[in-house]
This record gives sequence, C-alpha cells and structure tokens, in this order.
Amino acid sequence: MSSNWKENFSEIARQSRPSPVRDILKVVSQPGMISFAGGMPAPEVFPVERFAEGAELLRTEGSTLLQYGTTEGYTPLREFLAKWTAPRMGREVSMDEMILTTGSQQVLDLFGWALIDPGDVIITEDPTYMAALNAFSNHGAAFASVPMDGKGMLVEKIPALVESLRKQGRKPKCVYTVVNFQNPGGATMSLDRRKELADIAGRYGLTIFEDDPYGYVRFDGEHLPSVFSFDKKGNTIYAGSFSKILSPGVRIGWVSGDEDIIRQMAGFKQSTDLCCSPITQILTHEYCKKGYLDSHLPNIIDNYRTKRDAMEASLEKHLKPLGASWVKPEGGFFFWVALGAVSGDELARRALEKKVAILPGSIFSVNPEAGAHSARINYTFSRPDVIEEGLSRLAQAVQEMKIPAK
Amino acid sequence: MSSNWKENFSEIARQSRPSPVRDILKVVSQPGMISFAGGMPAPEVFPVERFAEGAELLRTEGSTLLQYGTTEGYTPLREFLAKWTAPRMGREVSMDEMILTTGSQQVLDLFGWALIDPGDVIITEDPTYMAALNAFSNHGAAFASVPMDGKGMLVEKIPALVESLRKQGRKPKCVYTVVNFQNPGGATMSLDRRKELADIAGRYGLTIFEDDPYGYVRFDGEHLPSVFSFDKKGNTIYAGSFSKILSPGVRIGWVSGDEDIIRQMAGFKQSTDLCCSPITQILTHEYCKKGYLDSHLPNIIDNYRTKRDAMEASLEKHLKPLGASWVKPEGGFFFWVALGAVSGDELARRALEKKVAILPGSIFSVNPEAGAHSARINYTFSRPDVIEEGLSRLAQAVQEMKIPAK
Repeated sequence: MSSNWKENFSEIARQSRPSPVRDILKVVSQPGMISFAGGMPAPEVFPVERFAEGAELLRTEGSTLLQYGTTEGYTPLREFLAKWTAPRMGREVSMDEMILTTGSQQVLDLFGWALIDPGDVIITEDPTYMAALNAFSNHGAAFASVPMDGKGMLVEKIPALVESLRKQGRKPKCVYTVVNFQNPGGATMSLDRRKELADIAGRYGLTIFEDDPYGYVRFDGEHLPSVFSFDKKGNTIYAGSFSKILSPGVRIGWVSGDEDIIRQMAGFKQSTDLCCSPITQILTHEYCKKGYLDSHLPNIIDNYRTKRDAMEASLEKHLKPLGASWVKPEGGFFFWVALGAVSGDELARRALEKKVAILPGSIFSVNPEAGAHSARINYTFSRPDVIEEGLSRLAQAVQEMKIPAK
Repeated sequence: MSSNWKENFSEIARQSRPSPVRDILKVVSQPGMISFAGGMPAPEVFPVERFAEGAELLRTEGSTLLQYGTTEGYTPLREFLAKWTAPRMGREVSMDEMILTTGSQQVLDLFGWALIDPGDVIITEDPTYMAALNAFSNHGAAFASVPMDGKGMLVEKIPALVESLRKQGRKPKCVYTVVNFQNPGGATMSLDRRKELADIAGRYGLTIFEDDPYGYVRFDGEHLPSVFSFDKKGNTIYAGSFSKILSPGVRIGWVSGDEDIIRQMAGFKQSTDLCCSPITQILTHEYCKKGYLDSHLPNIIDNYRTKRDAMEASLEKHLKPLGASWVKPEGGFFFWVALGAVSGDELARRALEKKVAILPGSIFSVNPEAGAHSARINYTFSRPDVIEEGLSRLAQAVQEMKIPAK
C-alpha cells in the first residue's frame, strides 16, 4: 500500500523539515525532565477558582455559548479590551479597529495572508520569535534583520536597510517587533525608539507589527506607551494575548489597528477558522468584567519575579564562572544567555542527556550565525528549587564540553 | 492621515471583494428578519444541561484546562472519536492518523497549506461548499468540476477530466466532495460511486478530501460507509465536525487520514494557531464519554426532520406552482431549490427587502452560470411556523419579479 500524498504535497510542505524545537518539546514531558524550553505559564498561578466562577454561564447562557460566534469576536469582550488597553494604546480603539483571534499566534498567520507575497521582506530584530519566522515563511516572506542593544531594536538603521533592499529590487513591507521583554532577547524598546520607529514607518511606506504578548507581565520599572500610540498615521497593528496574563487555554488573542488591515484580517479569519469559541470568549469576558484581570495580575507578576530572581542567582552561581552573560529582563518569560565560546545547539543536545530542556539560540535567528552561541531559558514554568537544579546540570553540561571559558 | 496598508497588501488581499454572503449574514440579526441563509443549528436542540454537567471540570481540572494543549489535540477525545467513527471509517484510526482542528473549516485551510501550490487544480462537485472554494482559492487553487445527479458526483467522469487537465499541462491534485447531503446540492453519494471514487484516486495519482459535517444528521435511510473505508491505498482524508451534532461553539472538528498528510497538517496547525482550546476539548470529551453524543443525536435529528418536512410542505404550497423544483434531502441542513427562470441573485436581493435571507446559488458554483437559477435555503434554524411565513414571502418576491413560470 502506498498513497499519493507525497507526490502531491505543496512546495512548502515538501520543504518542511523535522523541527528541532518539536523534538525538544516532545521529550519535555518525560519523567525527571526539567523544562526551560517552552513559554508556558506556571500552573500554580492560573486563577482557577475565579475563572470557574463563570461556569454557571454554561447553563444560563448555554444557547449562546454553544452557537457560532461572529468572526470579529464577542463584542463585550472587545469593548472591555478597548478600554483596558487604552492607556497603552493612547486611546480607546473602535470596534472596527479590533478583532479577537485564536491566540496571538493566529495574528501572525492572518497578517501573512493580508500582507505577504512570496519574496516580500519582513524586517525583524535578530534574534526574533521563531514562530513568527515560521508563520511568515509559510507565506513566502524573506527576512532582513536589525541588531538590538539593551534598549531594543536599533531603529535608526532601518532607513538605510530599506533603501538598500529597494535598490536590490526587493520589497520591504513591515517591521516586526516584540517591543517589551523581547522574545528571546529580553530587551525592551525605549520610548525614543518607539517614536522614531512610528515615524520611520510613515516616511518609508512601511507597516509595523507590534507584538506584545508579555507587555503586561512587568516586574520592574514603568509601563511604556505602545508604538501604536505614537503612530498617528495608522501604520501599526498591535497584537495582544490572554495567554500570559490569564490562560493560553482560552485561545484568545487580539489585534488592533487601522480598519483597512483589520477588515482584511477578519476576512482571512473567516476562511481559516470562522470564529473563536463563544464558550471561552464569554467565560473570559465574565472574568474580566469582574475586575479579576487587574486584581490577579500582581499574583502572576510576583510569582514570575521570584523565579526570574532565582534564575539570575543560579546563573550567577553556575554559568557566569563559565563565561556566560545576559541582560536581566524587566519582565516576560525568558533569559537570553550568551554562552561565550559554547555552541547553543550542542549545549541543548547535551542538556537533554542531563534531562534539562533549553532552546538553542540558532532557531531564533534570521542569520544562523547570530544566535549560534546563545540559548533561551524559560523561568516561569519551574519552581525555584527546580531552576537551581536545572542550572547546575546545565553547568555540568558546559564543563563536559571542555571549551575554555573566555 | 493616510496609512500605508493598501499599497502593502498581498495580491490575494487586493483581489478580495466584498462578499455578498457577508452582506447577507450581516443583516440576518435585524428585527423581523427570517434567516434561511446560514447553516446554524437550532438553539433549542443544544444539549445545554448535559454539556453544562462538565462545568465542575473548570474547577477540578482547571490547571489543565487553562494551559496550552498539544497541537494534535486532546488524546482522550481523539481516542473516543477513533472508536465512535469506526463504523463509518471501516476501522479505528490510530492516533497518528487523526488530529483535532478549530472546526472543520480549519481542515480546509490546513489542507490548502499541505497540498496546494498556485495553479493546482481541485476537482469539486458543482455546486459545492462556497467556503471550501474560498479557503482553497486563498492558497491559489484552480477548480474543475464534475456534475451531480441524485446519487451524487458523476465520478465516472473524473478520469477523462484528469487526462484532459494533464494534457493542458495542469496539475489536478485532489477530488473534494461533500459525500452526505451535499452542501448545497443535497444529494448523497451512492455506495458504488464511493468505491469507484477511491479506486479512481489510486489509479490516477489523486487524493480525496471527503468532507462530512452533516453525515450523522440523517433523517431517512441507512448510513453509508465513508469513501475512506473503501480507500485501501490511503489517499483519502475524512473531515468531521462537532458543529452540527453537538455545538459549533466548541470549535472542534477532526481530520483522519494517512499519517503522511496528518503530520503535515499538524505542522501547519502549529504555525497557524498552535492548538485548540483544552477547555472546549475536555468539556466535549466529558460529554462524549458519558454517551450523550449518541443519546442526544436523535433529538437533533427529530427536530430537523420535522423542519425539513415543514419546509417541503411550504415549498410545495408556495414555490412549486411558480416553477421551483428540488431533491428532498435525506439529512443535513438545506434545500437546494432550482428556481426555473428566476435569477437566484435577484431573488436573494428582493427577499431581503421582504426580510427573508437566502443564499443565491451562484456563490456555490465553480461555473458562475451553473447555480444562477438556484438558491440554498436552510431549514434547521427556524421554527416550522416561521418557515411557512418565510416561504410565503419568498413566493411573493418571485411573483413580483414577473417572470412567467415554466
């Protein structure tokens, strides 16, 4: 028996390779494994009781919850979000300027549908969120990258990059940026650069994808206004998510922006999955309207701050003596650790043998060399004692590689 | 203020036109409107109490429900479905042969990712499910069609069609068929044709997309085995959905097939929306494992059979005298009404003025002429007295068009 699938696969399906990330994430559930690999919230901070208070709605509002919803999303939840995000967005967006999505992952795909023709260039930070690279790649995107420092993307380098791309006959369409506690790099874009980025997009005919899944999980310092808030020409879409501030299980993200692009994304949402679940949208709205989003967020932040500090202490103790360095993240889920002379790919392999899962820096990089000696290490999912044990094992793995510390 | 979106849109976004369906579905919620347009289940048949019995899981299993799920879907629910669908599938599929999806709408998109390069040809029935045309079109598909009779697609016409397409240098990859109570045509593919279709796919290097959202909603006659069950070479994927047999609000469909294609679809699901909601998956599993899927289905079927019969009586009374004809569907959600000399587009417009929403046949057609004098009329959503009133208004609309009955 042999089927006709393989010879009928699309080009992009033929090109797909087994993903090293999938291989790592597959073994994460093995007994004894310490996982710093994914970006999972800690189970102990889920507001289970408060979310479950809405359970009665399954009975009282059952016919609405079980029916199709609108493609744009449950209006009361969008209205709540328009108000709740207003401080960050600079104003309340209208209902024509926001849709709900199946997690903010879906925003990446819908954006790809609306913007990307094969060969179009997306400008990213380097390193950047690997799943954005994958989602945009599926639509045929090419990438160009801009380096970062401790204040985020060096946005002043964008004009020259755009001009050089255009001289080559290429078509830069968008700047993709994770503005707060960048995944994986950890840096937060400064206020000045946010303003400058909005300005550059307007002047150079670009659009901006401001991805902000972690922005509300801030441990230190002040919240900054979004790039969206500085963009008076409407070239920026802002993507948010409930995954890190309430639950990934509700599968609800949102995207706000100019109604031209929002209308297009709604059209593509209709042809890809019709609508989000009214069940999770209405339960989420119930949770939000009671004020729980605001009152519970400090619990999440406290839990993760403690873990970030525990991981930094363990990094100091175990990996700094071996030549590792990092920028302390002011929020979010990850340390991005520069490993000196150590290969991130090899360390990730050897760590797995010691039952520690991390992600090698290479998978986040537009330029394969750029992240070759780095790793992304998640601190939100594991308890502090587990973090200490995991980093001790990581240090053993580094030492066994017998590369002299710098 | 003018943004840069429009000049940065993708080719496919530029080509997107305001959809007549969206325009119709937008006005459906206006007061006094009778909607025969969508494919919505009746609110009164949702098993609200039985589904809500699982509500306690929000509390007791909260940390699992609120966390990320696996891309392939909640395993206990897949195991249930493998057993539940076995009679139709001919065997229990393995866990490598099935994933859960965000409604069966998502199966169309994932299939597009895995199979369709621009210009590839999908062979469909004509008329066919408009949302499949849209989803495949997004991926660049071209279409060729095969006519139907009362026993479904005339599959014996496929070999000559494939040869002729190949002579033109075109690449037919798949036969897309809604096998039971075809949407919108109403016909069910006969047993012999199912066998023949599976055989043709094997001999001609084709694949088959067997879409079966309505198959378990059968009023009369016997359930037929799937095309999948006859396909010993594994060229068929089978797509099912909870939308019509439990609830569209859970947003859960499934697709079964050869592990080569299932693995590809899982990969693309990961990059488009990561996973389905564990909340709705686990609540749905709780409902299913108690036997409610089987024990409640007769309530749904009885409700819709009554409405189908009511609609047929009203069609006989109001539209047959004006030249309309139809095939009585043995199940599913729709009548496909041939309108004689009457234009479906014009009737749909005029019906709206009388506060009745129907969908014109043209939107379901690969060849625009084919459905020009037809309409799809849904009977599941409205009560029998509303059905009678709606068809009486439709008949008035036809009469005002002053086209002589044939």
